[in-house]
Amino acid sequence: MSEPIRDVAHVSAVEIFTPVLEESVAFFVQVLALEEVYRRGDSVYLHTWDDYESFTVKLTGRSDAGIGRTWLRARSPEALARRVTAIEAAGLGHGWNSDEPGYGDVYEFADPDGHPYGIYWETQRYQPSDAMRPALKNQASKFPGRGANIRRLDHVNYLAADVPAAEAFLAGIIGARASEQIVNDDGTKQGVWYTVSDKSYDLVYTRDWTGAPGRLHHIAFATDTREDILRAADVCLEAGVHIETGPHKHAIQQTFFLYIWEPGGNRIELCNAGARLLLAPDHQMITWTQAERAKGQAWGLKTIESFHTHGTPLV
Amino acid sequence: MSEPIRDVAHVSAVEIFTPVLEESVAFFVQVLALEEVYRRGDSVYLHTWDDYESFTVKLTGRSDAGIGRTWLRARSPEALARRVTAIEAAGLGHGWNSDEPGYGDVYEFADPDGHPYGIYWETQRYQPSDAMRPALKNQASKFPGRGANIRRLDHVNYLAADVPAAEAFLAGIIGARASEQIVNDDGTKQGVWYTVSDKSYDLVYTRDWTGAPGRLHHIAFATDTREDILRAADVCLEAGVHIETGPHKHAIQQTFFLYIWEPGGNRIELCNAGARLLLAPDHQMITWTQAERAKGQAWGLKTIESFHTHGTPLV
Amino acid sequence: MSEPIRDVAHVSAVEIFTPVLEESVAFFVQVLALEEVYRRGDSVYLHTWDDYESFTVKLTGRSDAGIGRTWLRARSPEALARRVTAIEAAGLGHGWNSDEPGYGDVYEFADPDGHPYGIYWETQRYQPSDAMRPALKNQASKFPGRGANIRRLDHVNYLAADVPAAEAFLAGIIGARASEQIVNDDGTKQGVWYTVSDKSYDLVYTRDWTGAPGRLHHIAFATDTREDILRAADVCLEAGVHIETGPHKHAIQQTFFLYIWEPGGNRIELCNAGARLLLAPDHQMITWTQAERAKGQAWGLKTIESFHTHGTPLV
Amino acid sequence: MSEPIRDVAHVSAVEIFTPVLEESVAFFVQVLALEEVYRRGDSVYLHTWDDYESFTVKLTGRSDAGIGRTWLRARSPEALARRVTAIEAAGLGHGWNSDEPGYGDVYEFADPDGHPYGIYWETQRYQPSDAMRPALKNQASKFPGRGANIRRLDHVNYLAADVPAAEAFLAGIIGARASEQIVNDDGTKQGVWYTVSDKSYDLVYTRDWTGAPGRLHHIAFATDTREDILRAADVCLEAGVHIETGPHKHAIQQTFFLYIWEPGGNRIELCNAGARLLLAPDHQMITWTQAERAKGQAWGLKTIESFHTHGTPLV
Repeated sequence: MSEPIRDVAHVSAVEIFTPVLEESVAFFVQVLALEEVYRRGDSVYLHTWDDYESFTVKLTGRSDAGIGRTWLRARSPEALARRVTAIEAAGLGHGWNSDEPGYGDVYEFADPDGHPYGIYWETQRYQPSDAMRPALKNQASKFPGRGANIRRLDHVNYLAADVPAAEAFLAGIIGARASEQIVNDDGTKQGVWYTVSDKSYDLVYTRDWTGAPGRLHHIAFATDTREDILRAADVCLEAGVHIETGPHKHAIQQTFFLYIWEPGGNRIELCNAGARLLLAPDHQMITWTQAERAKGQAWGLKTIESFHTHGTPLV
Repeated sequence: MSEPIRDVAHVSAVEIFTPVLEESVAFFVQVLALEEVYRRGDSVYLHTWDDYESFTVKLTGRSDAGIGRTWLRARSPEALARRVTAIEAAGLGHGWNSDEPGYGDVYEFADPDGHPYGIYWETQRYQPSDAMRPALKNQASKFPGRGANIRRLDHVNYLAADVPAAEAFLAGIIGARASEQIVNDDGTKQGVWYTVSDKSYDLVYTRDWTGAPGRLHHIAFATDTREDILRAADVCLEAGVHIETGPHKHAIQQTFFLYIWEPGGNRIELCNAGARLLLAPDHQMITWTQAERAKGQAWGLKTIESFHTHGTPLV
Repeated sequence: MSEPIRDVAHVSAVEIFTPVLEESVAFFVQVLALEEVYRRGDSVYLHTWDDYESFTVKLTGRSDAGIGRTWLRARSPEALARRVTAIEAAGLGHGWNSDEPGYGDVYEFADPDGHPYGIYWETQRYQPSDAMRPALKNQASKFPGRGANIRRLDHVNYLAADVPAAEAFLAGIIGARASEQIVNDDGTKQGVWYTVSDKSYDLVYTRDWTGAPGRLHHIAFATDTREDILRAADVCLEAGVHIETGPHKHAIQQTFFLYIWEPGGNRIELCNAGARLLLAPDHQMITWTQAERAKGQAWGLKTIESFHTHGTPLV
Repeated sequence: MSEPIRDVAHVSAVEIFTPVLEESVAFFVQVLALEEVYRRGDSVYLHTWDDYESFTVKLTGRSDAGIGRTWLRARSPEALARRVTAIEAAGLGHGWNSDEPGYGDVYEFADPDGHPYGIYWETQRYQPSDAMRPALKNQASKFPGRGANIRRLDHVNYLAADVPAAEAFLAGIIGARASEQIVNDDGTKQGVWYTVSDKSYDLVYTRDWTGAPGRLHHIAFATDTREDILRAADVCLEAGVHIETGPHKHAIQQTFFLYIWEPGGNRIELCNAGARLLLAPDHQMITWTQAERAKGQAWGLKTIESFHTHGTPLV
């Protein structure tokens, strides 16, 4: 056995497409408590209060909702070089781009399903304005005390036509570790959870029931506590935000969750893992069967139908 | 700059000495909710419900309270070999031992202050009995629903006569990353926080006011929520456990904490970090000054006097 | 307008029938954290930690599950005399009984649907044994630190063939205040929530779909926090207790809830109202329509089918 | 024994004097999450989201901080008449006033220490604007999702030169029930807790160490959960609000608390009682001794010195 790859430090930021840009911005700022940090063209950059980098979400106006690029930070310049070599060898590379505010040179590529990614080393740290300066110096930005108070980006759950291809990409190219999976009775993989960190998952691929490429199931943000998620449910109720399902606890990964739809139609998860980590370097992937999935979530909630029918872009 | 070392996966377990073994066992089982897994000689092995390995705490009867060995799991056999080479080169090695239940071969060594450590790759996974089998297969053991319900070992805070020596050991030999520190006005280091994982700290060294070697400030266990810590305070109150300080929130590391003394006299912290992680691979160490420390904890609680006078063993 | 009646201080205790007495006792003690206080014949008396009286639940072995007597404490001897006069005038009285341990003379009666009640003034205060003595003198019993840690009885939700008759009983005989109600599109009352205290409800009647008399929808116990209810869900999952629905928040009364079935088949709610009270002495009853009910619970959870089909005894 | 008086339904609202009116308004609106409802002269009226009446706090600009009038709502017109008779018989009455927006006729009086009170029956219900309309019809106003999200006024803690005189007033004139007290070793009463509701206290009098009349120790607002109080501590830290002590749990009344100072200098408590109520109609007052008080708060926090030296107005 060769040593495991540990070249990606974390998932840094994600681009979301929305047909109603200003409504989506208002949702992210007022309800989720991100800060608008800068605008460029049709894109608005937003920052979560615990992100040491300059932005967490790039919202881009576009005719259809969906997911744009996901950015990964390499652990070192050498790690970046190794990943670029692997990506190019796999024929997934698109080349270097130095045009994204907040990062230095970014190597752009795509997963086998066509979701755009970028990987980089050089980054711009978040610099709080006077108004956003935190009371404690070991925190990026002032605690907002507003809406859902989301802390940081947690994970991305993509839809993919070919889950095994996604899995080969995650394990072999990204160097992510397998965490949990759903395997259908016919042996097909329904979904896979992988991690690049000590969190129990960072990147998730679920089988796309439409077969369309490059779609999104949801993007998830971590709150500090489960109570924050209960409060977020009240905040969403008052703000007229569509609550799809939850709050409840997943059996898979045991995440406490709330699923809502941002105004553009993209599904957003607010999640809390408690003190859960995946520390074992030789973790054995947990497999869930169809029968186990049929039991519903951890405390018995049946999985809502739209969970299997709604993705973005709509097809 | 050479690439950072990432050879230690996590802090696995710790040995605690107690002059009142059975009282300490009762405290760990009834109040903290660990499970007694096996006994050998004067030692009782205890397991926290989220630990994938066979034990988390080894309680050993001895005339004086204090800390015994700390075990670290290497990320791979190669990582173990690299660390052993580094330890031996530093003249800190004591040799291999295969006598510890729960582990394969352990390489034993000590930090410059004399605290015993062990590092290993081969381990025995926790196997729940029927009574301890969890409802969800992605959990090591049944959720206890008892007392403080602590989830896992979080960190160890040692006392050391020479903090800079400890720091050289952490950075150079263990390959831990610097997280936060207290630097006194005279330039001496009062305390340093280091991490081997994506948690913001795992190993802490604080200057020993007595100058005695090998002492312990505290061992910390993670609860799943802050509410668990508030509940633990009630549980400790009812059980007659000495509550030293808290619940409150540290300014350093922003940990929500409760400090209690187990019956043997060792200080135990129950801690919760919320969703806080240290994801930046190039994190810049946060420095706290004496003046900042004088402000007290995050919400203004003054640091209790015994925090500066109580360590184990007593000297 | 005459002055409102304020003669009932609170709902004190309730009798539950179970075909599996010892299993039900184990559930109440291990999962809900009540204390067994005494046994008499086929009945086991149980106490919640915040109840100033000697028992909270009387569990009685019987062939069918269901609800026995509900006890109400009068505010004063004069208040008791007034209520007895009103009950007798309504032809609902059964006479005095001095045979119940824990109370002095109890006047027994029934609501129009046949649910047995008792009202009394003289009571026996809970006297903790040494093992159950609390650390703080303003608390009845030691905080258990076990399972769901339920604090006290909260309310009873009866099924009744004739809801308007129940309502006349609540308002005119008991002297309870109207809080909230569901009125169907055809003008029939689906359910009514009434209070005798400053809590927003204590006694609830829901239309029995079977038309059978004297049945129970559920008995509810208050936990101290919402977090206790989330923890209770984990505890029930591990203990194999049937979780019917929740945790979630009701739109009606805004109660945070979890519904489970005790081993005998009776539905138990764990509930938390936050800091909600009904302080207005001239509160105007809130009316919910069928259309509003169809929206589901506060955060959108659809009402589970068994909620409309399961009551005890089964008919 | 005559029947207990139950003529006061609840403490409705309180007037606070501040030398920095606009700063105090900003604090109440931004940090505590009240809504400004109207202004008249030097007074700004503010509303908490769960108050069914039109205002909760009247902030009045004045050279010195301190407390103005406390308003009590009678349970009925007859109850109001009875209380006015009792107040006049005690020589504490000042006469009727119909000039307060939000109330009908108010009978004004003072306690023996000179704190102004008003009692009334007719009131104006809170009418939400479109922007403040709640999603659920059983809630007065929209949940703010801002800062400390305080729910309602909880209690007032006055300072008084003569505590026994205050107690005679509470029991005999107001008709409040005795809940808990501190009795010093020399037999003097240090503080008394009384309730007019099923909450365990509403009105508190503490001995004024200065002997000056009419002063305030603190005004308390209820949050929905303990977590809200922990969050409020973060919010106050970021906003530069002075945190005096807490969060912690009182031994007396077991309230989870945070004490802060509003910009005018008045002490504000954020408090949460969990599911605690005082339901016993014949509750026996709990007495705390000096020795018990010396143990500190429930979990051992020492009472902060300023708690014994800071009141408003400053003298």
